[in-house]
Amino acid sequence: MAELSGAPREACGIFAVWNHPEPVGLVLRGLYALQHRGQESAGVAVRTPAGELAVERGMGLVGEALPPERLARLRALAPDAALGHVRYSTSGASRLENAQPFLVRLHQGASALAHNGELVNAGRLRRALERRGSIFRSESDSEVIAHLVAARPEPDLGAAFLEALHMLQGAFALALLGPSALWAVRDPYGIRPLTLGRLGPAVVVASESCALDAVGAEPLGEVRPGEAVEIGPGGLRRLRYARPQEGDREALCLFELIYLARPDTLLAGGDVHSFRKRSGRLLAREAPAAADVVVGVPDSSLSAASGYAEALGLPYEMGLVRNRYVGRTFIEPEEAGRDDRVRLKLNAVRPVVAGRRVALVDDSLVRGTTARQIVDLLRAAGAAEVHLRIASPPFRFPCRYGIDASKRGELFAAGRTREAMRAELGVESLAFLSLEGLLEAAGESASRAGAGGSRRFCTACFRGDYPVPLLDDEEAAEPGSALPLPPLRLEEVS
Amino acid sequence: MAELSGAPREACGIFAVWNHPEPVGLVLRGLYALQHRGQESAGVAVRTPAGELAVERGMGLVGEALPPERLARLRALAPDAALGHVRYSTSGASRLENAQPFLVRLHQGASALAHNGELVNAGRLRRALERRGSIFRSESDSEVIAHLVAARPEPDLGAAFLEALHMLQGAFALALLGPSALWAVRDPYGIRPLTLGRLGPAVVVASESCALDAVGAEPLGEVRPGEAVEIGPGGLRRLRYARPQEGDREALCLFELIYLARPDTLLAGGDVHSFRKRSGRLLAREAPAAADVVVGVPDSSLSAASGYAEALGLPYEMGLVRNRYVGRTFIEPEEAGRDDRVRLKLNAVRPVVAGRRVALVDDSLVRGTTARQIVDLLRAAGAAEVHLRIASPPFRFPCRYGIDASKRGELFAAGRTREAMRAELGVESLAFLSLEGLLEAAGESASRAGAGGSRRFCTACFRGDYPVPLLDDEEAAEPGSALPLPPLRLEEVS
Amino acid sequence: MAELSGAPREACGIFAVWNHPEPVGLVLRGLYALQHRGQESAGVAVRTPAGELAVERGMGLVGEALPPERLARLRALAPDAALGHVRYSTSGASRLENAQPFLVRLHQGASALAHNGELVNAGRLRRALERRGSIFRSESDSEVIAHLVAARPEPDLGAAFLEALHMLQGAFALALLGPSALWAVRDPYGIRPLTLGRLGPAVVVASESCALDAVGAEPLGEVRPGEAVEIGPGGLRRLRYARPQEGDREALCLFELIYLARPDTLLAGGDVHSFRKRSGRLLAREAPAAADVVVGVPDSSLSAASGYAEALGLPYEMGLVRNRYVGRTFIEPEEAGRDDRVRLKLNAVRPVVAGRRVALVDDSLVRGTTARQIVDLLRAAGAAEVHLRIASPPFRFPCRYGIDASKRGELFAAGRTREAMRAELGVESLAFLSLEGLLEAAGESASRAGAGGSRRFCTACFRGDYPVPLLDDEEAAEPGSALPLPPLRLEEVS
Amino acid sequence: MAELSGAPREACGIFAVWNHPEPVGLVLRGLYALQHRGQESAGVAVRTPAGELAVERGMGLVGEALPPERLARLRALAPDAALGHVRYSTSGASRLENAQPFLVRLHQGASALAHNGELVNAGRLRRALERRGSIFRSESDSEVIAHLVAARPEPDLGAAFLEALHMLQGAFALALLGPSALWAVRDPYGIRPLTLGRLGPAVVVASESCALDAVGAEPLGEVRPGEAVEIGPGGLRRLRYARPQEGDREALCLFELIYLARPDTLLAGGDVHSFRKRSGRLLAREAPAAADVVVGVPDSSLSAASGYAEALGLPYEMGLVRNRYVGRTFIEPEEAGRDDRVRLKLNAVRPVVAGRRVALVDDSLVRGTTARQIVDLLRAAGAAEVHLRIASPPFRFPCRYGIDASKRGELFAAGRTREAMRAELGVESLAFLSLEGLLEAAGESASRAGAGGSRRFCTACFRGDYPVPLLDDEEAAEPGSALPLPPLRLEEVS
Repeated sequence: MAELSGAPREACGIFAVWNHPEPVGLVLRGLYALQHRGQESAGVAVRTPAGELAVERGMGLVGEALPPERLARLRALAPDAALGHVRYSTSGASRLENAQPFLVRLHQGASALAHNGELVNAGRLRRALERRGSIFRSESDSEVIAHLVAARPEPDLGAAFLEALHMLQGAFALALLGPSALWAVRDPYGIRPLTLGRLGPAVVVASESCALDAVGAEPLGEVRPGEAVEIGPGGLRRLRYARPQEGDREALCLFELIYLARPDTLLAGGDVHSFRKRSGRLLAREAPAAADVVVGVPDSSLSAASGYAEALGLPYEMGLVRNRYVGRTFIEPEEAGRDDRVRLKLNAVRPVVAGRRVALVDDSLVRGTTARQIVDLLRAAGAAEVHLRIASPPFRFPCRYGIDASKRGELFAAGRTREAMRAELGVESLAFLSLEGLLEAAGESASRAGAGGSRRFCTACFRGDYPVPLLDDEEAAEPGSALPLPPLRLEEVS
Repeated sequence: MAELSGAPREACGIFAVWNHPEPVGLVLRGLYALQHRGQESAGVAVRTPAGELAVERGMGLVGEALPPERLARLRALAPDAALGHVRYSTSGASRLENAQPFLVRLHQGASALAHNGELVNAGRLRRALERRGSIFRSESDSEVIAHLVAARPEPDLGAAFLEALHMLQGAFALALLGPSALWAVRDPYGIRPLTLGRLGPAVVVASESCALDAVGAEPLGEVRPGEAVEIGPGGLRRLRYARPQEGDREALCLFELIYLARPDTLLAGGDVHSFRKRSGRLLAREAPAAADVVVGVPDSSLSAASGYAEALGLPYEMGLVRNRYVGRTFIEPEEAGRDDRVRLKLNAVRPVVAGRRVALVDDSLVRGTTARQIVDLLRAAGAAEVHLRIASPPFRFPCRYGIDASKRGELFAAGRTREAMRAELGVESLAFLSLEGLLEAAGESASRAGAGGSRRFCTACFRGDYPVPLLDDEEAAEPGSALPLPPLRLEEVS
Repeated sequence: MAELSGAPREACGIFAVWNHPEPVGLVLRGLYALQHRGQESAGVAVRTPAGELAVERGMGLVGEALPPERLARLRALAPDAALGHVRYSTSGASRLENAQPFLVRLHQGASALAHNGELVNAGRLRRALERRGSIFRSESDSEVIAHLVAARPEPDLGAAFLEALHMLQGAFALALLGPSALWAVRDPYGIRPLTLGRLGPAVVVASESCALDAVGAEPLGEVRPGEAVEIGPGGLRRLRYARPQEGDREALCLFELIYLARPDTLLAGGDVHSFRKRSGRLLAREAPAAADVVVGVPDSSLSAASGYAEALGLPYEMGLVRNRYVGRTFIEPEEAGRDDRVRLKLNAVRPVVAGRRVALVDDSLVRGTTARQIVDLLRAAGAAEVHLRIASPPFRFPCRYGIDASKRGELFAAGRTREAMRAELGVESLAFLSLEGLLEAAGESASRAGAGGSRRFCTACFRGDYPVPLLDDEEAAEPGSALPLPPLRLEEVS
Repeated sequence: MAELSGAPREACGIFAVWNHPEPVGLVLRGLYALQHRGQESAGVAVRTPAGELAVERGMGLVGEALPPERLARLRALAPDAALGHVRYSTSGASRLENAQPFLVRLHQGASALAHNGELVNAGRLRRALERRGSIFRSESDSEVIAHLVAARPEPDLGAAFLEALHMLQGAFALALLGPSALWAVRDPYGIRPLTLGRLGPAVVVASESCALDAVGAEPLGEVRPGEAVEIGPGGLRRLRYARPQEGDREALCLFELIYLARPDTLLAGGDVHSFRKRSGRLLAREAPAAADVVVGVPDSSLSAASGYAEALGLPYEMGLVRNRYVGRTFIEPEEAGRDDRVRLKLNAVRPVVAGRRVALVDDSLVRGTTARQIVDLLRAAGAAEVHLRIASPPFRFPCRYGIDASKRGELFAAGRTREAMRAELGVESLAFLSLEGLLEAAGESASRAGAGGSRRFCTACFRGDYPVPLLDDEEAAEPGSALPLPPLRLEEVS
C-alpha cells in the first residue's frame, strides 16, 4: 500500500503538553513530527494558567494551517499547556468544521478535544443526542464525545468525561484539555497508539514516539489500553476506566507497523524500521525470488526491500525514484488521466532495471491500482521480469477502526486467488508474507499468538476477526431502544 | 448622532425570499440595499426544493463577505428560497462565528436563523440551556433561539419554533428558513421593523422597504408586532403568537426614524426623508437660530437641515463635506489621535462658513464627542458663530433593545443641563427638538400619544419608560428558579 | 454625468510630502482625501534620509491596496519624504503593473514617478524609445517619462528630468521623488490641477486642496502652468520650464469643477460646491422649470440642484436616494441586466415624487444611459412630469486629456438636436446651462473670455477647440521622422 | 552537503515545449519533476499561434506559485508553446520581481527568458547598460540578457539574441521563447545541463532528463556546450555560436552529479543514482571503516551509503529518518536555536545505532555545521563510534557558477587539515573520496582526465582551476573601458 494510491488512511496525530512555558512552539514541533499522520488540517488549543482555553485551526499542512499570526494569537495568551492535532479525512468532508482540536464551552467548563481513530457507534450516539436537543456542527467523532460530556449531569469535567468514555465503542486515542487538567485515553483494545513523555517538569502526550524525540522528551511508556491518564497540577494519575472483561486482549493495529508509523517510532517493543526490515527478511525466507536486483516502492517499503535484498544477497537499488514535491498541492494537468498520475510521483531508473529481473517489494496491497501502474512503469523502463513481493498478508476485510479501505469491494485481495491477482498485475510471480511471518516480525511467535490469532494485534483486515462489534453498519443500523447507553440523569430546566 | 462617532448601533438587516428561481441574486440585492444596517459580516442561507439547507458567511461588506465563488456554491444547489443577513456588532466579538444566518441541524430539521434586535433574557436562557447540555459556539442571540427550538420535544419545526418564541423577551425581528417553510416574526412590541413584499409568485421579507424597492417587489405591509408569518407551499399564513396583554401597546424604535433607516424607507406611514425634513421644520419652529447659513452633518442629518433652512428661509449649504471612502477599511495613521479622526471623515468648506453665523443641524446627540469635533472644524474654517440644533430630544437613558449606547455614563445628555452641554460643546446656542415635536413629525399628535407617552413608539432612551423589563442586567442577574421558562418535556434517551 | 454611469473618468490623484518625520501616515491621509479621483489602485513611495527609495503598491481602494503590513515595511525604513498616488483606469488594463508611483533605478539615481493626465504623444515617444532598446513593463505614461529621463545623458536627475519635460505633450500633473529632491510639475496649459501646501517645516503637494485640509496643511497656492517646483534641502525653487509661447493661455479642465473635484476643494479662485451652486442658480435663470419639487442626482449634482431650487423658490427634496455601498466591489447578480443596475445604486422616494412635477438636475450629460434610467425610476415612482436640467453645456467632442469619454460616437449630444435628446430621454423638457453661464459660474465673464472662447479653461469637449494638438490618434499616427524630439546625445557603451 | 544545511545551491530548473496543443499542462508536469532545483518561485510563459506571449509567475512551490486560476488564464489563450522555470535564490532577494520566466517586449518582439546558472560579468554588463538608459527592474541575470538583446540594432530576435550571447561570460543554460521560435542554449563549457526530447511532433527542452520522463518524452540528447538550438516551424536547427578556442574543453559541474540532480536523471552517460552508488563503492575501497552498520544522510547520500555498505558487506540501515514535511513552510518555534533545527528535520533511530560502530556516509561536506549536528544526534542515540565518510573530495574553493557557497571563509575544508576537521566534527575517523575516485565514478579515468585535471568536468571547487575568469569579484571590479563588449551601433532617435 504505497502512499501513492491516494488517500488510504485515516490516521490522525495528537500531541499535547502540560506545564511548559512555551507550549505552542513545542506542540508545533510535535505536529511537524506527526505530519505523516494527517495533512488535511491542523490545529492547536491552549490553556492559560487562569483556566481559559483558545484554539486556532486551519486547512492544509501544519505550516499552512498554523501561520505565524495564528500562533502569535495563542502565544499572546501566555498559556502553559497546549493540545495539537493533525487530521487526515476519509470521507469528502474536508472542511474546517471538522478540523481539530474541537473546542467547546460545556457547563463543566471549556474543553478541547482531539481524537484519533473511529467509533463504531458514533452514528447511534449522535442520533440519540440530537433527539435530546444537541446541535451538531461537524461530522467528527470528537463532537459526539463532547456532547456526551455536556449531557452528563456531573458538574466536574473529569468525572463527566470518564462517564462518557463508557459509552464509546471502537478505536480511539483521545486527548482532552480542560481548564485544570489534561487527559490522555486509549480504547480498551489499544487499537490506536498513544504514548507519554517527560520534558523537565512538563508532561508530553504523543501519537508516536518520534514526536517525543522531536522535542527532546524522555519516553514514559504508552498509555495502556483501557487507561485514562489525568495530568494536572498534582502530577500524573493513571486510571483504568474500562471494565476488566474487555481488557483481556490487546489489538494494536498492525498497519501502524506495516505502513502508518514513522520508521523511527518505537512501537510494540522496537523501532518500526527494524520491524519492517525483519518483515523483508522473513519474506525472503518464505518467498525468495530469482532476481538480479531488489527495488522497493518508496518510501514506506524501502526498509522491507533492503531486508529482502540482504537476506538473499542481492543488490538493493533505487530503481524507482519518488518526486517528493508531488503532494497535496499538486494541480492535475487536465489532460492527465488518473492512471497517469503515478508517473508524476514515481519514475523508474532505466539503467537500473533495463534487461534485469526485478524483485519489487511493497509493504502491502490494498486496491491494487498503484501496484499495477508501478509494474507498467518498470516494464516500460525495460525490466525483463518483475517479481512482486508484499511484506504483509492479503488485505481481505475492511477496517472499521480508522484505516480507510472500508468497502469490501475495493479490496483487491477480497475474492481473488493469488494466481488471479498475479495475472491481473502482470507480474512473473507474486507472493505475500504470511500472517505468522508478520506476527513473528512484530515479536509475537506463533505459539504465543495462539491458534485463534494474535493476542496483541488486531488482525481483522487479514482474518475478519473484529475485536469490537460493528454497530454503525447500514445492515446493523437500528434505532434507540437497543442502544447500549446508560440512562442519562439530567436535571430538568425548571 | 452622526455615524461618524464610531459604532453607535446594533442594527442588523434581514432579507429573505421564498419561491423564486434565483433567490441568491435577489437576496444579494436586498442585502446591498440594507448594507447601512450592518457592515461587519454578511451571509446567505439557501433552501433547495428537496428541503436541504446550506449557508455561506463572511466578514466585511456584502461584496467582501460574499465573493462570487461563495455565491456560486449556493447557486449550484439550485435553491428556491434564501435568507440573508448583514450584521453590525456592539461588542468586540467581531468574529465569523457570530455572523448570520446561523445554520443548525436540529432534530426537527435543518434551520437557518437571522435576527435583528437584542433579547433582554438571552443570558438567562443561555445558562439554563448549558446546564441541560447545550453547547454554544457563538455569543449571538440567534444561537440561543436555535437551542431553544432544539430543546423542544415537538417533532415539527414550526410548532417547536412557535413554542420557543414564548420564551423570548426583548427586541427581535426574526426570520427562520426551514426545509419546508420560511417564518418572519416580530416581537410583541414591534421594536425592530420587518416588512413583507410580493414579487410575482415569490414572497419577500425585508428589514426595510427600500430593499423591496431594490428588487422591484410590491409592498404587502409590515409584519405586525406579536405576529409570526409562515410562508410555505400553501402561501402566507399570519399567526398571532403573543399573549394579548403584551400586545396592547406598540413601541417602534424612534431611532429607526431619526437615524438608522434609509431615507427612502417607508416606516410608520411615510418615508423617512420626509419625516426627517418635518422634524427639521418643527425644530425651526421651536428653536429658530439667527444664522446666515444652515449646514447639516452629512449624511443622516441633511434632510433635517434642509427642512430647517426652508422653514426659516435661510440658505442651505454644503458647509461640511464627507469623505465617502473613510469607512471600515480605514487604517489609522499611527500619529493620528482619536480626536483627529473626524478630520479624516469630514472637511469644512471655508468659503461657505468663513465669517458667517452657522446653524449646524445634527439628527441626535449621543456621546457628544463628534459634535465637539465638528464644531472645532467649523471654528477653524472661520465660522463666526455656531448654533447647534439637534433634531431629537436629549438621549438620556441607555437602550437595551439594540442601539449600542448601552452604558448610562457614556450618554452626554445624562446628568448635564442644556447650558452645561452648550458650554462643553463650545457653541453660541444649543437646542433640541422636543419629544412632542418628534412624535408630531412621526405622525402621532400629543393628544393621541397621551400623557404617559407614546402608544406607538419606544421613547425609553428619552424618558426611561422601557416597554420590556431588563432581565439580564447585572443587578437583576438571578439563577434559574425565577426563569420564566415553561418546563421542558424532553424525551429521555433510553 | 452622475458617477453612476460606470467609469467615466481618468482622474488620478497625487499626494507628496517632503521633510516630515512620518511621511507615510501623512500620505495615507492625503490619499484617502483624494480617493474619489481613483479607486483602481494605490501606492506610496518613500525616500530615506540616506537617499534610498522604496515603493508599495496594490489594487483597490487605499485601505485594500495599502494594508498595515505594507505600510509597516515602508515605515521601517524611517523615511522623511513620500509620494502617493491613486489611479483610475480608462482602458481594461487594470493591472498592478500600471499602478503608481512607478519606481525605477536610473543611472541618475532611483526615482519614483506619479502622473495625473494623459500625454497625446505617449505612443510616439514609446515607439522611439523601444527602437533605442528601452524595455517597457507597463502601459502607463509614467513609464514613458521615466525612460525619457533614463535616456538623457545628463548625470544629474533634476537636469535630465527638466530636459525630458520638453518632450511631453498633453495634459500632465507630475510628481517625481528622487534621492535628494521632490519635483512637482504641471503642463504648460495647466489642464490638470496640482497645489502646494506647508505643514510646519514640511512641504506638501496635492492634486486638490481638500487633501491639504485633511493633513492640516496651510495652502501655498497652485503649481502654475508650465512650472516645475523643486523641493529639496534648500527649500522650494520654482522654475518655468515651458517655452513662453505655449504659456500664453491657460486651460484648466472644466470637468474638474463640474464633476471631478471634491466640493470642498478650492479651484479657480473658489470652492467647488459654491461654483456648482452658482451654476444651478444660473441654470434656473436660463431655464426655469414649472415644477413642484427639485431633485438632484446624488452626489455630484446636489449642490447645483439646491442652487436651482433656491433660485426658483421651490422645495429641494431627496427624491433619489443613493446606496453608498454599491461600488467597486459590487457583484452583479446574474439575472440583472445592465439597464437594471441603476436600481441597485439609486432609489426614488415615492412619497416625494408621486403625482408631482419634478425638476431633475444633473451636472452633465455624457452617454445618456444613466439619465434615461433615472427618468424611468422617477416615472415608476409616480412622477407626473420630469423636467431635466443639466448644469453644463452639451458634451460634444471627445476629451484627449484624461476624461474617459474618448470616442465621439459614445457622446449622446454629438449629432443629436436638443429635441431629439429630450424625446429619447422621455422627459417633458430638457435644458442645458450655456457655456457663457458655465464660465460665469467659474468666475470668467463673457467679456473676459473673449469671442474665441475661454482664456482660463479648456472648453474642448463643448467646442472642439483643443489647446494641444492630438498626435497619437490613429489617423495622425506617423513614424519617427516627424517626432518633435531633440536628438539624444548618448554615450556609447565602449 | 545534505540539503539540510539551509540553502546551499542556486540551481534553477528550465522546462519548455514547442508545438503541442496543451503546453501548459506539460510544462507544469515538467516543473514538478524539476522542483528539487528550485522552490522559491515558479513561472510559465506561453506563446500563441498568433505570436503573442503571456506569463504567470508566483512565489513558492509550483503548486502554490501556479494555482489553477493562473493556469486557466494561460490556457484561455490557446497557446502552442510554453516555457517554465523554477528558481532557487542565493541572495536574500527572494522577490517576485526576480521570478522567471522574464517576459519583455523588445523592439524585436516579445520574449520570455529563463536562465539557470550565474554570469561572471553580469555586474559589468548591467552598469554599462544603465549608463545607456536601460532601466532594470530585477537583480536577475535574465534581465541583463534581455536588455542586451533590446540594445542590439538587429530587428530580428534570433539574430539579436545570438549576438548578445557573445557578451555573456560564466555558467548559463538558457531558454528564450519568442513569437516565432524557441531557443535553447548552453554556455561554451557546458557548466549547467540542458537536454532535448521529442514527444510526437513536439520538441521539449529540460534541465534534467527526469523531466522528459515525467511527460513521456523520448530523449534527443543534450544541448552541447557552446550550442544554440533554434526550435521553430521549420524544425530543429543546431548552431554553434561560441568561438572554437573556448569549446576545446568541457566543464560540467560535478555537484550536479554529487548532489543537485535527481537520482533518475541521466547525466554524463549514466544515471545519477548509479554514479552515486559507484562513488560509495570507490569510497569503500579507498577508506573502509571498521563499523557494524552503514547509515546514509537522507536523501541525497542514500545511494552512496548503500554502495559503501554493499562493497564492505556491512548492513545498510535507516539509522537517520528524515521528516519529509519540514521544508520551506516550516515556522521556526521561537525557542529553537539554529543548532536545534537539524533535530526537526532528522531523527536518529536509537535501536539501530545504540551501542554500535556507525559508518556515516554523506555526499559532500561544505560548511560542516550540519555534519556536526548529525554526529551529535547519533551520539545522543547511543552510537559507540562514528566514522564519517564523504563521497566527494574536500570543497575548498568557492563556486562562481551557481553553487551557493560563494565565500571562501564559509568553506569548512578551506584552511583546515583532515585531522583538524575530524576533531572539530568529533568523529572517530574521517575520510573523503579522492578526486580521481570521483572522476572514475563519473566515467573519466585518470589517464583520460590528464595531469592538469578533468577535460569533462568542472573541478574548480576542489582544485581552484576555474574554467571562466571571475570578472565581477570586488577585487576585479573595473569600470566600462575594459568591458569586452562590441560597440553597439544604435539607431539614433531622430
